Amino acid sequence: MKVLVINAGSSSLKYQLMDPETGKVFAKGLCERIGLDGKFTYKPQVEGKETIKAADVAMPTHSEAIQTVLNALVDPQNGVISSMKEIDAVGHRVVHGGETFASSVLINDEVLKAVEDCTPLAPLHNPANIIGIEACRKVLGDDVPQVAVFDTAFHQTMPEHAYLYSIPYKYYENDKLRRYGFHGTSHRYVTLRAAELLGKDPKDLKIVSCHLGNGSSLAAVDGGKCVDTSTGLTPLAGLPMGTRAGDMDVGVIEYVANKYDRSISSVMEGLNKRSGMMGLSGVSSDFRDLEAAAAKGHHRSAIALRIFEYRVHKMIAEYAAAMNGVDVVVFTAGVGENAPSTRAHILEGLEFMGITCDEEKNNTRGEERIISKDGAPVTVMVIPTNEELMIAQDTLSIVEENKNK
Amino acid sequence: MKVLVINAGSSSLKYQLMDPETGKVFAKGLCERIGLDGKFTYKPQVEGKETIKAADVAMPTHSEAIQTVLNALVDPQNGVISSMKEIDAVGHRVVHGGETFASSVLINDEVLKAVEDCTPLAPLHNPANIIGIEACRKVLGDDVPQVAVFDTAFHQTMPEHAYLYSIPYKYYENDKLRRYGFHGTSHRYVTLRAAELLGKDPKDLKIVSCHLGNGSSLAAVDGGKCVDTSTGLTPLAGLPMGTRAGDMDVGVIEYVANKYDRSISSVMEGLNKRSGMMGLSGVSSDFRDLEAAAAKGHHRSAIALRIFEYRVHKMIAEYAAAMNGVDVVVFTAGVGENAPSTRAHILEGLEFMGITCDEEKNNTRGEERIISKDGAPVTVMVIPTNEELMIAQDTLSIVEENKNK
Repeated sequence: MKVLVINAGSSSLKYQLMDPETGKVFAKGLCERIGLDGKFTYKPQVEGKETIKAADVAMPTHSEAIQTVLNALVDPQNGVISSMKEIDAVGHRVVHGGETFASSVLINDEVLKAVEDCTPLAPLHNPANIIGIEACRKVLGDDVPQVAVFDTAFHQTMPEHAYLYSIPYKYYENDKLRRYGFHGTSHRYVTLRAAELLGKDPKDLKIVSCHLGNGSSLAAVDGGKCVDTSTGLTPLAGLPMGTRAGDMDVGVIEYVANKYDRSISSVMEGLNKRSGMMGLSGVSSDFRDLEAAAAKGHHRSAIALRIFEYRVHKMIAEYAAAMNGVDVVVFTAGVGENAPSTRAHILEGLEFMGITCDEEKNNTRGEERIISKDGAPVTVMVIPTNEELMIAQDTLSIVEENKNK
Repeated sequence: MKVLVINAGSSSLKYQLMDPETGKVFAKGLCERIGLDGKFTYKPQVEGKETIKAADVAMPTHSEAIQTVLNALVDPQNGVISSMKEIDAVGHRVVHGGETFASSVLINDEVLKAVEDCTPLAPLHNPANIIGIEACRKVLGDDVPQVAVFDTAFHQTMPEHAYLYSIPYKYYENDKLRRYGFHGTSHRYVTLRAAELLGKDPKDLKIVSCHLGNGSSLAAVDGGKCVDTSTGLTPLAGLPMGTRAGDMDVGVIEYVANKYDRSISSVMEGLNKRSGMMGLSGVSSDFRDLEAAAAKGHHRSAIALRIFEYRVHKMIAEYAAAMNGVDVVVFTAGVGENAPSTRAHILEGLEFMGITCDEEKNNTRGEERIISKDGAPVTVMVIPTNEELMIAQDTLSIVEENKNK
């Protein structure tokens, strides 16, 4: 089976053609600047086929972008399939499923309408995801089944006391304001994979999953179910991130808005785009840049890293408490997979709860590995995330399920 | 020695006359509705003297309020001292000491100016405190030494990574926006008292101090020094409280402001006055009311309590992680001292880190008591707070110190 995985943004579209059963990727790439001066990248993962990087590609809408992807996939010279018919299904990443979607779902008109209904909760993301779905329908036709995989779905098992905000209850009743949480597909993938690697049933494990990248979140996963996570109604919440502030004393917002006569939107933009590691360091939102600057004695870069590490450190304990204990801590995503020193600093000082870091084993990047000390009560692991594989696997199982109906 | 302890609000003034060495209270009470229809309460703590509750007392300003207090204290019939000269010193609670004051200080013109300079950080509180100080100076004269004890001072030992917000650094440099933390005098009192009761040097203890009242905060106190606390630039931050929301996804603010066309000040007022336990339950901000309603099956009251308990539960673990372990957990303030069921729910599920709750011992209200199980690795205690005693003791030691200069 071959599944095309699509992650559509407002002016971009990431794609990957893969076999969900073997995990083999045939090709992947990216359409950028859709509606502008279209940029196209195509990377076949098959021997003898060549990467294409093209600028000024005519992509006035997402439909032309999808068409460009399909053309490349079936191209006689560098393509990886002989016909569009080899694409059995399409799996879409959709950011916000609200309280409607607690798992992935076969897309039909009703589902599309429900995704649209979630747009007020993710005004930047859901419309782009819908455009991606509609473009695929238009180009591939109705015969190719399409599946929606939601970033929020995995967190729908959180109990009320973890997802309600301490604000007037009417905002939950009328506006559905609550903690939803993001990166759900990644947290689901790495926690399932951790159980698999350890030869355990996910039902028997208490896992703290640390998705640390440009966007970061932690999730407490007890017996395979998410019981808490750090992002909220929006992805701004929780940990400080590359350019995002994370949870805040709202008094800070009022102070800045009043003193500098700024609107809420203007303050929010600052909290989303100029805060976090970037705002603290004044240098970069990229952890590699910060490490380099810190190594040269740049204090603000060092303190930005320290703040991030300290917040993750504390949150691991917080989520262990949410489960009355922890068996496994997993690190994933850009920083989680590739920054040994950040991991070491996060883990240092959690020994009192059985969490350790083996210096030698921790010296690893981008590979599945246990990094805790031998015999330690808690297993600490690095597991590279693979949201595309999770999306493809969901797509496969939903398509199979619906075939049997 | 006799110290008059003053806690001045914008239209109120709490007072207590006490001996800092023995802790004996001679009289205490409250002036309310200053500048309005003045209400006065006087409660002598000496046998044979009678409580006074008076309405429509002429208190156009704090000066008349102080004068009313002094008149009551020296009143031939119900007074507790024979002359104003028996008042050796005055200790003032001052809310915000910014980064200027890391400990209590003898008040002079320079200090008063510095307290004024902190006003932008506490626009509602510091002006009232200053008015209280000036009224005492006017009525008692310059010969009676006055001492300022800051709510923020104890938290000034926090390291940079605990107090900096992940926002552009210029806001710290230019506006001093950072976590300051409140309830410092209470956290200092109960952590010192815990060490005393356990016969230990505070230097040898890692303590998580839980000040749970209408306003709530936790503090991590390592070796006698605060290393982290949950309130921030303002007292809105951290835990959900009686009517305050605590830390929030700022996206919620933007959503509410945009959808309901509300200003930041209006949203902030809602977060300060109509959120927390009140907003969730729709019933009351008082934990006793919530317990009663929950017992009758009122779901929103039950969930409000559960949310509070869950957040404190997680934060105890978080602060243990901040210190790589914990020896003592202390509960204090209205809820912390008097709500056994809230304490039990908070502690349940922290056994993995050695924290226990003995059901029988926990059945206590308003008294100093160890409530953890015998032989448990972590000692859990209830210690009624006494900020007035702490203020009086600071006043005594600063006055003595300055005498010897």
